[in-house]
Amino acid sequence: MAPSKQNDEDSESPSNNRLELIIDAAARMFDAKGYSATSTQDIANEVGLLKGSIYYYINSKEDLLFRIIEESHEGALRAIATVSHLEVGPLAKSYALVMAHVNVFHDDRVKHSVFFKEFRSLSDDRKQIIRGTGHAYSLFLRSILEEGQKVGQVDGVLNPRLATAGIVGMLNSMSFWYQDGGSWGPDIIGSQFAEQVVMGVVSEEYLSSSGGRGTLLDAIRGELA
Amino acid sequence: MAPSKQNDEDSESPSNNRLELIIDAAARMFDAKGYSATSTQDIANEVGLLKGSIYYYINSKEDLLFRIIEESHEGALRAIATVSHLEVGPLAKSYALVMAHVNVFHDDRVKHSVFFKEFRSLSDDRKQIIRGTGHAYSLFLRSILEEGQKVGQVDGVLNPRLATAGIVGMLNSMSFWYQDGGSWGPDIIGSQFAEQVVMGVVSEEYLSSSGGRGTLLDAIRGELA
Repeated sequence: MAPSKQNDEDSESPSNNRLELIIDAAARMFDAKGYSATSTQDIANEVGLLKGSIYYYINSKEDLLFRIIEESHEGALRAIATVSHLEVGPLAKSYALVMAHVNVFHDDRVKHSVFFKEFRSLSDDRKQIIRGTGHAYSLFLRSILEEGQKVGQVDGVLNPRLATAGIVGMLNSMSFWYQDGGSWGPDIIGSQFAEQVVMGVVSEEYLSSSGGRGTLLDAIRGELA
Repeated sequence: MAPSKQNDEDSESPSNNRLELIIDAAARMFDAKGYSATSTQDIANEVGLLKGSIYYYINSKEDLLFRIIEESHEGALRAIATVSHLEVGPLAKSYALVMAHVNVFHDDRVKHSVFFKEFRSLSDDRKQIIRGTGHAYSLFLRSILEEGQKVGQVDGVLNPRLATAGIVGMLNSMSFWYQDGGSWGPDIIGSQFAEQVVMGVVSEEYLSSSGGRGTLLDAIRGELA
């Protein structure tokens, strides 16, 4: 059955829309109450469906958790896709990736929060799928830093894997402190974090030949504008 | 009752020692299985005590969780105490704090992992106590960065609170990827992260007057040696 109480006129796929409503409600509830403390019945109540109707869209509560976490990672993959097509140097790419990451996080903050809190509630098979996506993201950033070392933009002594772990950690930590309507919006956070990241890895020679911190960052923002 | 099967000859306080064993066992089990899936009985079995004997040391399972998380934060406070007494400049202090943080994390990695996974299982009162400690830590790092801005070592445009959030996030993320016997020990991680942190915030003028990345970092390591 696929009853539709919502206004589906602006959608080509009412069923997908309904599923998204269920996923969003589940994400909010898993985030606030925890996965184990939230029942499928709670989610059904929240979206005004019978519990049985929920099972038209998914097979289990864990399916919902997986979809939420999968969606939190799809944003990161979209960020990779955007940045990988930019025709700019490695430091500018890392700047752009940080900006994109912060914006993706902002857009999907509840789902990201559920990912960090409830990843371990996934089945082992599904953990592996998600780890694969996270790994792809880290590999992408690492390849940018390695390219940066090759062309002399990034300090050659840094370990790119370790630098990547630090940068990804800095970005992911937003799920602990980011607040809607807090002091900073995604653009302010993104540009400052991007500055810290770029300056944290830039090579002495490239920084000096670029004219120093201010000029280098202005040039990067120019490249990306 | 306080039976003592262990060898207490090298300890002045057998009861405290026993409590530490219980806390360590609880931390390992909460980390591996989760807080809600671990019973006081499981912990008693693990340390070879009767469940009733555990209650000689604590009043509830949540007491154990609180002690674990409290101890994970006490290391951070010891790091503050050490660094605050150093007679070095702000950038060197931030370098030293990063090194100390990574070492503290290494020493108490299981307890830190429990903190990140199970913080929300604490009662609200206790959450507030722990938040207070975390806040003290962030305030300390922020005050170092603000001092750095005052004396011209740190870029004046950076928002010190936001920079602090990024740095603390980078450090705390270790609980997600740090592995015993992994590729890097705490000294390697600490020094690279400290470099990324210092270079991420240093002002153009101070960096240039210090002679660039390599010379500045060598000078800081010299100050701290």
